[in-house]
Amino acid sequence: MAEIGIGIIGGGYMGKAHAVAMSAVGSIFDTPLRPRLEMVSASSPASAEGYRAAYGFARAAQDWQELVNDPRVEAIIIASPQNTHRAAAEAAFALGKPVFCEKPLGASLEDSRAMVAAAKASGCVNMIGFNYIRTPASQAARKMLADGVIGDITYFKGEHTEDFLADPKAPATWRTTGRANGTMGDLAPHMINAALALMGPITKVSAEIETVHKARPGGAVTNDDHGQMMCRFANGAMGHMYFSRIATGRKMGYAYEIHGTKGAIRFDQEDQNALWLYLMDEPEEMRGFRKILTGPAHPDYLPFCQGPGHGTGYQDQIIIEAKDFLTAIHSGRSVWPTFQDGLEVMQVVEAAWSAAQSGTWTEIPN
Amino acid sequence: MAEIGIGIIGGGYMGKAHAVAMSAVGSIFDTPLRPRLEMVSASSPASAEGYRAAYGFARAAQDWQELVNDPRVEAIIIASPQNTHRAAAEAAFALGKPVFCEKPLGASLEDSRAMVAAAKASGCVNMIGFNYIRTPASQAARKMLADGVIGDITYFKGEHTEDFLADPKAPATWRTTGRANGTMGDLAPHMINAALALMGPITKVSAEIETVHKARPGGAVTNDDHGQMMCRFANGAMGHMYFSRIATGRKMGYAYEIHGTKGAIRFDQEDQNALWLYLMDEPEEMRGFRKILTGPAHPDYLPFCQGPGHGTGYQDQIIIEAKDFLTAIHSGRSVWPTFQDGLEVMQVVEAAWSAAQSGTWTEIPN
Amino acid sequence: MAEIGIGIIGGGYMGKAHAVAMSAVGSIFDTPLRPRLEMVSASSPASAEGYRAAYGFARAAQDWQELVNDPRVEAIIIASPQNTHRAAAEAAFALGKPVFCEKPLGASLEDSRAMVAAAKASGCVNMIGFNYIRTPASQAARKMLADGVIGDITYFKGEHTEDFLADPKAPATWRTTGRANGTMGDLAPHMINAALALMGPITKVSAEIETVHKARPGGAVTNDDHGQMMCRFANGAMGHMYFSRIATGRKMGYAYEIHGTKGAIRFDQEDQNALWLYLMDEPEEMRGFRKILTGPAHPDYLPFCQGPGHGTGYQDQIIIEAKDFLTAIHSGRSVWPTFQDGLEVMQVVEAAWSAAQSGTWTEIPN
Amino acid sequence: MAEIGIGIIGGGYMGKAHAVAMSAVGSIFDTPLRPRLEMVSASSPASAEGYRAAYGFARAAQDWQELVNDPRVEAIIIASPQNTHRAAAEAAFALGKPVFCEKPLGASLEDSRAMVAAAKASGCVNMIGFNYIRTPASQAARKMLADGVIGDITYFKGEHTEDFLADPKAPATWRTTGRANGTMGDLAPHMINAALALMGPITKVSAEIETVHKARPGGAVTNDDHGQMMCRFANGAMGHMYFSRIATGRKMGYAYEIHGTKGAIRFDQEDQNALWLYLMDEPEEMRGFRKILTGPAHPDYLPFCQGPGHGTGYQDQIIIEAKDFLTAIHSGRSVWPTFQDGLEVMQVVEAAWSAAQSGTWTEIPN
Ligand SMILES: NC(=O)C1=CN([C@@H]2O[C@H](COP(=O)(O)OP(=O)(O)OC[C@H]3O[C@@H](n4cnc5c(N)ncnc54)[C@H](O)[C@@H]3O)[C@@H](O)[C@H]2O)C=CC1
Ligand SMILES: NC(=O)C1=CN([C@@H]2O[C@H](COP(=O)(O)OP(=O)(O)OC[C@H]3O[C@@H](n4cnc5c(N)ncnc54)[C@H](O)[C@@H]3O)[C@@H](O)[C@H]2O)C=CC1
Ligand SMILES: NC(=O)C1=CN([C@@H]2O[C@H](COP(=O)(O)OP(=O)(O)OC[C@H]3O[C@@H](n4cnc5c(N)ncnc54)[C@H](O)[C@@H]3O)[C@@H](O)[C@H]2O)C=CC1
Ligand SMILES: NC(=O)C1=CN([C@@H]2O[C@H](COP(=O)(O)OP(=O)(O)OC[C@H]3O[C@@H](n4cnc5c(N)ncnc54)[C@H](O)[C@@H]3O)[C@@H](O)[C@H]2O)C=CC1
Repeated sequence: MAEIGIGIIGGGYMGKAHAVAMSAVGSIFDTPLRPRLEMVSASSPASAEGYRAAYGFARAAQDWQELVNDPRVEAIIIASPQNTHRAAAEAAFALGKPVFCEKPLGASLEDSRAMVAAAKASGCVNMIGFNYIRTPASQAARKMLADGVIGDITYFKGEHTEDFLADPKAPATWRTTGRANGTMGDLAPHMINAALALMGPITKVSAEIETVHKARPGGAVTNDDHGQMMCRFANGAMGHMYFSRIATGRKMGYAYEIHGTKGAIRFDQEDQNALWLYLMDEPEEMRGFRKILTGPAHPDYLPFCQGPGHGTGYQDQIIIEAKDFLTAIHSGRSVWPTFQDGLEVMQVVEAAWSAAQSGTWTEIPN
Repeated sequence: MAEIGIGIIGGGYMGKAHAVAMSAVGSIFDTPLRPRLEMVSASSPASAEGYRAAYGFARAAQDWQELVNDPRVEAIIIASPQNTHRAAAEAAFALGKPVFCEKPLGASLEDSRAMVAAAKASGCVNMIGFNYIRTPASQAARKMLADGVIGDITYFKGEHTEDFLADPKAPATWRTTGRANGTMGDLAPHMINAALALMGPITKVSAEIETVHKARPGGAVTNDDHGQMMCRFANGAMGHMYFSRIATGRKMGYAYEIHGTKGAIRFDQEDQNALWLYLMDEPEEMRGFRKILTGPAHPDYLPFCQGPGHGTGYQDQIIIEAKDFLTAIHSGRSVWPTFQDGLEVMQVVEAAWSAAQSGTWTEIPN
Repeated sequence: MAEIGIGIIGGGYMGKAHAVAMSAVGSIFDTPLRPRLEMVSASSPASAEGYRAAYGFARAAQDWQELVNDPRVEAIIIASPQNTHRAAAEAAFALGKPVFCEKPLGASLEDSRAMVAAAKASGCVNMIGFNYIRTPASQAARKMLADGVIGDITYFKGEHTEDFLADPKAPATWRTTGRANGTMGDLAPHMINAALALMGPITKVSAEIETVHKARPGGAVTNDDHGQMMCRFANGAMGHMYFSRIATGRKMGYAYEIHGTKGAIRFDQEDQNALWLYLMDEPEEMRGFRKILTGPAHPDYLPFCQGPGHGTGYQDQIIIEAKDFLTAIHSGRSVWPTFQDGLEVMQVVEAAWSAAQSGTWTEIPN
Repeated sequence: MAEIGIGIIGGGYMGKAHAVAMSAVGSIFDTPLRPRLEMVSASSPASAEGYRAAYGFARAAQDWQELVNDPRVEAIIIASPQNTHRAAAEAAFALGKPVFCEKPLGASLEDSRAMVAAAKASGCVNMIGFNYIRTPASQAARKMLADGVIGDITYFKGEHTEDFLADPKAPATWRTTGRANGTMGDLAPHMINAALALMGPITKVSAEIETVHKARPGGAVTNDDHGQMMCRFANGAMGHMYFSRIATGRKMGYAYEIHGTKGAIRFDQEDQNALWLYLMDEPEEMRGFRKILTGPAHPDYLPFCQGPGHGTGYQDQIIIEAKDFLTAIHSGRSVWPTFQDGLEVMQVVEAAWSAAQSGTWTEIPN
């Protein structure tokens, strides 16, 4: 079995999740390529050393440049803040190294475009971290939609709602400044990605974006608390999405409901092991939304557990990403979702900002 | 106990519901005024006679004019198609008789304005049939919002979704022609009323309205299958509503979710005896949406049953309306919701049509 | 349309429900026989007069004897305490009058046997008030079971749980003394009836019955707070039932779950308009419990509302009973459930007491 | 950081889960002791070699004896069939090595007693694999009960239900013979453990145990398909448990509902990230079961994810076990649940068999 040296930039929330994933993925998926936790970098050498010890990396880097340049680092995971994504990715691609980058692709549309260009120019494997779409349930939903199980789609409703800033007295932090850290920059990409993955391209949007609590203990808030968009899909369906970090009561409100001519699908990440399906073609007295518990019959479930209904969790999504990234590297062919998918999400985000400004519909070029 | 002679125009779906309500309301609410089923009219004398016998009216009328003019008919319920509402109401008011009119108020904004004017000019008691807001659960929600239980509202999401025309092969009927019979004309008013009742005035909307299935067996479809609007409330909150008759799987999808700075409220008419409440002010490990079952502690529940969780149903909403109508007549003072409330709903519907046309935001004068 | 004079003994909780039902049933079900609220009796002439006025009866009786004997009272509803059921029923049957009796049939097994004997001897129509089994959802469940939709049954789990005495500091009342007013006497009959109706005869039981809070403010508690039984059905299935008035959090916990070789059915009265069905014969990735909302396709729903998912409530169950009672009288043939069904329930209750005493299994003769 | 060599006996369903857990636990919990996947054994050297390669062990053993005796194997996980548990554990303890043993403790009560004796005699750390009680939700429930949040308990209802043998045509396998592989031997221990952990000791049981489908394609079935018991707890509460492998529609039906004098708790493993709590001490109009989503405020959640509601899954339970096992080894002090807890479960299982035989109550000595 071949080994590959992994370098992770950032050891925080997501850096840890990816380190864990790389430790576990081999035994779970019996991957042909086995990751070796080679190096980790962070905002300081000291914190990098702390992460090294905690997660079991061989070495800590002085900075991300050292990590990217290290010859034993053969694949790179970017799990540092959005404004670091572009430089790190470009450097890695320049050296011909595959890159997995956390969402959002870049801190801006411009960064994102540059990153896609660099990826393409290099020919390297590239992937973006939209983990929620990787649950067995959402993968199953995607497959059902592709198979036409619920017919032609007429309406898509999506949301990504959390409430970590619902309390107006919650203090200002780095999250409350910088467009890339606001709701549209930080939370919306997950659900926009879901919309694109499940429904196909969006052609236009009309939107509102707003900072509700403009000042918090500790400072002014300069980015958005919530936003919504009406949208139109290339398949003709009407749609709506809502994004919020002040949606009191919602913890992981990544949810969608899709209506088609033959049925409907409903999902809520807060109960991530269930997928709701309605099929019109049943005797009237027996029709209803059925709650399907994920199990071995659904994508990427079996390697975690032989029993249906036993459930996967957040960390498992990252492990599935790790498997896909290793598979891509092994075969030399990027697998969905790539940087290009990350860019397409950014284009919708950008269009939403423009529509929110103008108060009218903004077209999205494809 | 005083008696009052009731005349009902229309004996179909809603005419029956009101006839039943008037039969039952006295014993349920021990009303001071007791209704007497005096007369019913319909589209033909024969059908009126059929309704008379079935529902137990004393007499059937030749037409609605006869009914309105009959001296023993002392209060009038209009449960005939939208295009008949105005003339009947105006005639009744001209004779100084109280009127309960089914939603939507009129077949058009113009009709609705005229009806409000006639009501005001006459000084008669007037009421409109927004029954869903009358469930004990939605009344309780309204009270909680008014009491500030969930703080300042930041977002309102509402829908009125059903699927009786979801099947593209369902035949064309009278429902598939005429703006007043489309989704915006027929279903949207209920949820718009809810939004106004729970949240207060809407100041502007941006909307989409669409006929998805333009032809059905038996003819062309000339009114809308679904529509959505983003909206802004006078209290500053952002909002969204979706209306559909093709929302596969939804049967009575009158649902809302409201987020505030101190909590959240959720309701779905498909489980009309439950209200979901989230309160932020709890120890973190014990916070969660609680499912409150309606009971004697909630408005208008106790008269139906002494036991909590035993549940009320659709017909009971109409009985609550009957109680309120009788109370209004008895006291001589209209009770909410009046024709004016019906008009305010129509203004939002109208603004939505205009916004859908222009692709921009339309202000709603108040 | 023929009329029939109704006399109701008792004007409390259930007396009112039946008065309302008799006021509404004609217009809802278009019954051939139309009830006339002729007479009501209560524990005193004064209270009877109060009920008369409130519910709209023609006359109040001095006592139940006067009511039963009155020639214009042609059918009798017994809605007074359990210890009055037998005498009233026997008197009515002696005069050849049909009787609807609230559950439980009698205050004891002996009373119940006598009542069945009197009913049989008289040849009169007789019926017992198991209203919960009358919801459209439970009627649909019963039909599905009879049709073999879920195959051969292997397990039945039932409960009737409420929490009106969960608080140990709730005061003693008449409900806390007298075996017939305890949990087994008062609540259990509903669920035992459901078990028999859905599953067929019970052949033996093993049980526990207990008074948890033996003293309450105001006095000693002399009847049972909760009880459970394991049981075996004639169809071979294993079963369990739990009954409680101290099941904190449960308001109307009349619930069952039934597993068969081809599927499963689940129901909870707290969401009485939904029936959950699981069918094994589906592709594995699409299997799940479906939540069927009741609608016109289910028994006795359409007369209440043309729209599915609009829902029926507690009072509507009593209206369905009224329809069935009138139908029985009209045809001269008792309809399910009759006094005999009430007696069969009492036999199971009695066997449970005996089993609880002996600590072993008690057979139920059939 | 100290390292410890892990040997796992068995590489199937649970052997894999433990191998994965040992790969991931260090980085998730930053454990002071870091596991090294030293050796794996299986039913044949060839299959052991396959597991070695797949899960990343250093070496494969010829048989479990070699593994236990190997000096670099410093701690042992037994994940082989029940009939191998005793011999392997005894051998390990004889060498002074800590042992984690999958549930049930032994294949019989006798084995289990011997294992506890061996553990005690050796003074070695010992632990048993009741993973379901380790979810953040069930740990939180356990804490709430211990803290008296819902007062004095009056009733406990538990079940462990699955449906992998619900289809009568599912073929006979090794699972369908041998008492230790039947429902009481294999599934019941999890829920009995939960009952003991949440409620404290059980003093007596009355039970039924049954083989419903006595023959299957491929052979006779010699162990039990389902069973139930009524039980009494030392704290005075009444209880019931149901265990089944033929509960059609149930996939991971590890569920409990507990009623107390101040509230109630409900949990269902099929939605393992939610805990339902009812508190009586709330204004009546606001009372209801609240759905608490697990998050950083609950035990053992934070190391998996900083965001509440993001969810943990089946594999994560095994990782929590691995953390606790390492912690125990590091401190030299066994942590709950130990072999003794496994034995106490077996005593209840044994009592159930005896009660099922006799048809009466069987006392459990403590
Ligand atoms: N897929 C998902 O569900 C989530 C994705 N994210 C994304 O992951 C990325 C990281 O976010 P978090 O882990 O939440 O942040 P965090 O603040 O928890 O961790 C950031 C890490 O980056 C390191 N870092 C900062 N500047 C650096 C630099 N110049 N060079 C090297 N390392 C540097 C910090 O030392 C820290 O270890 C972001 O792009 C974020 O949008 C974050 C949370 C969830
Ligand atoms: N609040 C609610 O939940 C609902 C309200 N409605 C509203 O109730 C009204 C009636 O609708 P449905 O009962 O569904 O219709 P329907 O078609 O079931 O019944 C209409 C009745 O009006 C009678 N009618 C028609 N033209 C008439 C005329 N010129 N004079 C006298 N009677 C005439 C018909 O004979 C029939 O009895 C409409 O305004 C509708 O929007 C309808 C359904 C639900
Ligand atoms: N089906 C169901 O869901 C329910 C059935 N019930 C049953 O209904 C019956 C009545 O119970 P509730 O209405 O709850 O009691 P309640 O206490 O509310 O009313 C009892 C009525 O009986 C009258 N009464 C008492 N003694 C009488 C006598 N000797 N002669 C004439 N009237 C007399 C009282 O004046 C009162 O009007 C009981 O058998 C009870 O088990 C009660 C509640 C629910
Ligand atoms: N905690 C939980 O949720 C679960 C616990 N279990 C328990 O885990 C244990 C293993 O069960 P599964 O993994 O499901 O079985 P399995 O059949 O999937 O794997 C059993 C493993 O044991 C090995 N084995 C068999 N005989 C052996 C021997 N004499 N020496 C060494 N290895 C031997 C086999 O080669 C195989 O690798 C059982 O005690 C079972 O009750 C099983 C499933 C779930």
